[in-house]
Amino acid sequence: MRGLYIGRFQPYHLGHQATVQEIAKEVDEIVIVVGSAQVSHTLENPFTAGERLTMICSALEDLRGRCYIIPLPDVDRNAIWVSHLLSMTPPFERVYSNNPLVIQLFKEAGIVVKKPPMYSREIYSGTAIRRLMMEGKNWRNLVPEPVALFIDQVHGEERLRNVSGNDACIESLSLSV
Amino acid sequence: MRGLYIGRFQPYHLGHQATVQEIAKEVDEIVIVVGSAQVSHTLENPFTAGERLTMICSALEDLRGRCYIIPLPDVDRNAIWVSHLLSMTPPFERVYSNNPLVIQLFKEAGIVVKKPPMYSREIYSGTAIRRLMMEGKNWRNLVPEPVALFIDQVHGEERLRNVSGNDACIESLSLSV
Amino acid sequence: MRGLYIGRFQPYHLGHQATVQEIAKEVDEIVIVVGSAQVSHTLENPFTAGERLTMICSALEDLRGRCYIIPLPDVDRNAIWVSHLLSMTPPFERVYSNNPLVIQLFKEAGIVVKKPPMYSREIYSGTAIRRLMMEGKNWRNLVPEPVALFIDQVHGEERLRNVSGNDACIESLSLSV
Amino acid sequence: MRGLYIGRFQPYHLGHQATVQEIAKEVDEIVIVVGSAQVSHTLENPFTAGERLTMICSALEDLRGRCYIIPLPDVDRNAIWVSHLLSMTPPFERVYSNNPLVIQLFKEAGIVVKKPPMYSREIYSGTAIRRLMMEGKNWRNLVPEPVALFIDQVHGEERLRNVSGNDACIESLSLSV
Amino acid sequence: MRGLYIGRFQPYHLGHQATVQEIAKEVDEIVIVVGSAQVSHTLENPFTAGERLTMICSALEDLRGRCYIIPLPDVDRNAIWVSHLLSMTPPFERVYSNNPLVIQLFKEAGIVVKKPPMYSREIYSGTAIRRLMMEGKNWRNLVPEPVALFIDQVHGEERLRNVSGNDACIESLSLSV
Amino acid sequence: MRGLYIGRFQPYHLGHQATVQEIAKEVDEIVIVVGSAQVSHTLENPFTAGERLTMICSALEDLRGRCYIIPLPDVDRNAIWVSHLLSMTPPFERVYSNNPLVIQLFKEAGIVVKKPPMYSREIYSGTAIRRLMMEGKNWRNLVPEPVALFIDQVHGEERLRNVSGNDACIESLSLSV
Repeated sequence: MRGLYIGRFQPYHLGHQATVQEIAKEVDEIVIVVGSAQVSHTLENPFTAGERLTMICSALEDLRGRCYIIPLPDVDRNAIWVSHLLSMTPPFERVYSNNPLVIQLFKEAGIVVKKPPMYSREIYSGTAIRRLMMEGKNWRNLVPEPVALFIDQVHGEERLRNVSGNDACIESLSLSV
Repeated sequence: MRGLYIGRFQPYHLGHQATVQEIAKEVDEIVIVVGSAQVSHTLENPFTAGERLTMICSALEDLRGRCYIIPLPDVDRNAIWVSHLLSMTPPFERVYSNNPLVIQLFKEAGIVVKKPPMYSREIYSGTAIRRLMMEGKNWRNLVPEPVALFIDQVHGEERLRNVSGNDACIESLSLSV
Repeated sequence: MRGLYIGRFQPYHLGHQATVQEIAKEVDEIVIVVGSAQVSHTLENPFTAGERLTMICSALEDLRGRCYIIPLPDVDRNAIWVSHLLSMTPPFERVYSNNPLVIQLFKEAGIVVKKPPMYSREIYSGTAIRRLMMEGKNWRNLVPEPVALFIDQVHGEERLRNVSGNDACIESLSLSV
Repeated sequence: MRGLYIGRFQPYHLGHQATVQEIAKEVDEIVIVVGSAQVSHTLENPFTAGERLTMICSALEDLRGRCYIIPLPDVDRNAIWVSHLLSMTPPFERVYSNNPLVIQLFKEAGIVVKKPPMYSREIYSGTAIRRLMMEGKNWRNLVPEPVALFIDQVHGEERLRNVSGNDACIESLSLSV
Repeated sequence: MRGLYIGRFQPYHLGHQATVQEIAKEVDEIVIVVGSAQVSHTLENPFTAGERLTMICSALEDLRGRCYIIPLPDVDRNAIWVSHLLSMTPPFERVYSNNPLVIQLFKEAGIVVKKPPMYSREIYSGTAIRRLMMEGKNWRNLVPEPVALFIDQVHGEERLRNVSGNDACIESLSLSV
Repeated sequence: MRGLYIGRFQPYHLGHQATVQEIAKEVDEIVIVVGSAQVSHTLENPFTAGERLTMICSALEDLRGRCYIIPLPDVDRNAIWVSHLLSMTPPFERVYSNNPLVIQLFKEAGIVVKKPPMYSREIYSGTAIRRLMMEGKNWRNLVPEPVALFIDQVHGEERLRNVSGNDACIESLSLSV
């Protein structure tokens, strides 16, 4: 049996890791979908899809052989999003998600969705971790150790601070150039 | 003579209906353009283009034989939007619109725009109706009866509430996954 | 009960017309999908989607009130094409098509496809009619009368000849400029 | 030696002009990139790329023979933006920019970025000038004289006011129709 | 050290498998890129990206823990293709490819390309295998056993035959509807 | 008065140069549009838009101050191509083109098209020159001298040969990987 778990993983943190470990107890193989794969170098999405799946792989350890890790670009058309995802992933029987829109879209497509447990969401949250990185505070204990090493290796903190600069609301080049 | 009327129709309500009936007195045929056709399953745009044109058709009654109902995806490039629309519609002589941008774009293209009467816009408004649907209050008397039936049939209220969930500002999967 | 009929209609001819009339005997409403809606001004696809749906409407007569005529741009991704189409059309129960790919895609989506009768396909064929138009031979008796009138009104023959010119294989500006 | 200078130029003003003149002292040729080329007819981006490069050319005078002026559509994928730009421009050795995201992206690509001097940014700012145009106040002394003439010729003030109308936050047809 | 191997894998055959095993002797980890990920249901590209990566994973056995398998949609702009790929993959040091265009693009980007050995290319070729599938001849001994099982499970032969039908040259819905 | 001249310029040769010089006698300023700007590294289109406009600029000499050189990506929708072009160029009064499709599209938009003289088209042709480059024969006398220098500088011959390789019909990565 295969289960699907979807997130943006900006970055992949211990909350994600705990969820994956929990899912691994219920299914044989896990399809981890890295959403918004085309976005990077913004405050909300500092890391490329390639960087994010490197993080995930580095942390999976013995689970790696049971996981598929798949970058998925957005389609910006909710009505076709499920079939877009299905065309890029191996067949699966169950989805794990807490996102209301994801749940609704899979439900309309007749696919079972199960809410995974949430691990102290206010602590293990991408938004919170990116804020700590911006402020130069400690975030390294909130992500798996190999993820912290990788982020340092690609100068993640520096990138995050630079893409914000003075213009705190810069989110895309459309707005910023 | 053909007139063009454009809206998002999220959902099609009695204000739209009254406008169409008014336009029908002035022209032989009406081209009804369902804008933002590619968007659905968001707070602002809960219904697919297919659902929206089903609503419109169900309400038109004897006007249906004089109407073209055409889904039009956005192009996100205002400078080519008029020629995008022209390539998807039958030839028409006049546009009915109260939207300042639509008016400006047609005017630059040398096409006559006439402002249709507005029917109690604060009551018959898509935004207001979607809010009532969210809050479980009565919205059914603000739309044509067959539209209310169709919305119930596709579980419109439930969809609207689900795509909002706790994260009230979720508007697209780019933000939400 | 609604049935769906799909074609490019370059142009809409008497073979299409006979098929629509046949389908009209079996279903209450017909969804006519104008495929490759974004293409025009080529040898294979001389007419815009707007022109094609004007042709169809002009020929439908008393069937018009039971038809939806919907322009559908290509998506160039077969795996999501069915859900793309579903999001732009009213709900339907049955598809009429002789195209093997269309049949396969609907079949994989669990939607019933029925082959409509073919009306002397070698005579009533878009390719054959476009060739006659190119050569200045008689094609007008192969299309409904209002369609012939409309094509003349938009100078269809001239356009077709001009987009071919000396370079018989010009199909898009990518190749030709 | 060639230098690259990038902006949206909505509109091209005396601050831009002074910067170009400064850069012209340091390099042989200047590649002026008109960013967000696909956007127009919005409050933030009233002018088309064609209009913007006409403005720039009209103001360059004797510098024109040393400049390339290149419209560049957004790609909305920061990770490929530099290579997108490189494929549309002549080779260059140095970038002039004050935008933190642009600086970061070029830096990751190993391209030298130099901050040009800023000329009274609060006065010579696109945002400030567009606000003055909206309010019917004097903006003409903030842009090169030929630019003011051109903006009047295309009825720039009127367009800007019309695309705002009552709905001050209309930014695209996705939101407004 | 990581190496990158790219193909369309329509389907994944024993030639691919032998190449991966060879590469595995030279590098620690292999990034297998499934190209043209958005294409499926055509004569040249019968299988979805999701199906292709399922095939690959099923055949990798003990190599799976050392492989990343990444679907990559085309960009149809050769000049940005390398940076598109780089944004979707983990960092790698070396590319394995026999394709002249791929070699040229990586070379211009300053990335080392090594030609992997070719395994009886006329026998182990996607084109040849698809032809055998079309003709109902034996192809199963040319692919890894689990791949043959999977193709049968998704009715691959039938799909391939159906998307060809009578119109042997149908390659996309643009041409066929 | 401004005239517009459009081509792919793969590469810019003496036939183009003679045409530009001829046009320069009739108009004050020339808008040179570099079509299919997004394509490069193929047999038909070896050079990027940036490279092509560098070639053109290098050859224009004293005409450069009277020219605008504008890269224009394809839109693959003929019906909107003229308005796409208009949004990216300065206003112009006349078009120079021998391409039947370009002529037809501008004519339908009500814009005057004039056929420029053709300079020994069989000799000064992009196709012929690319063939000579492939075969290692002399092509340098068919292009302006600075263009020949630039092509050598970017190793144009080598690139052209490499993107062809053994697979003479490789035109895009969709086909080739």
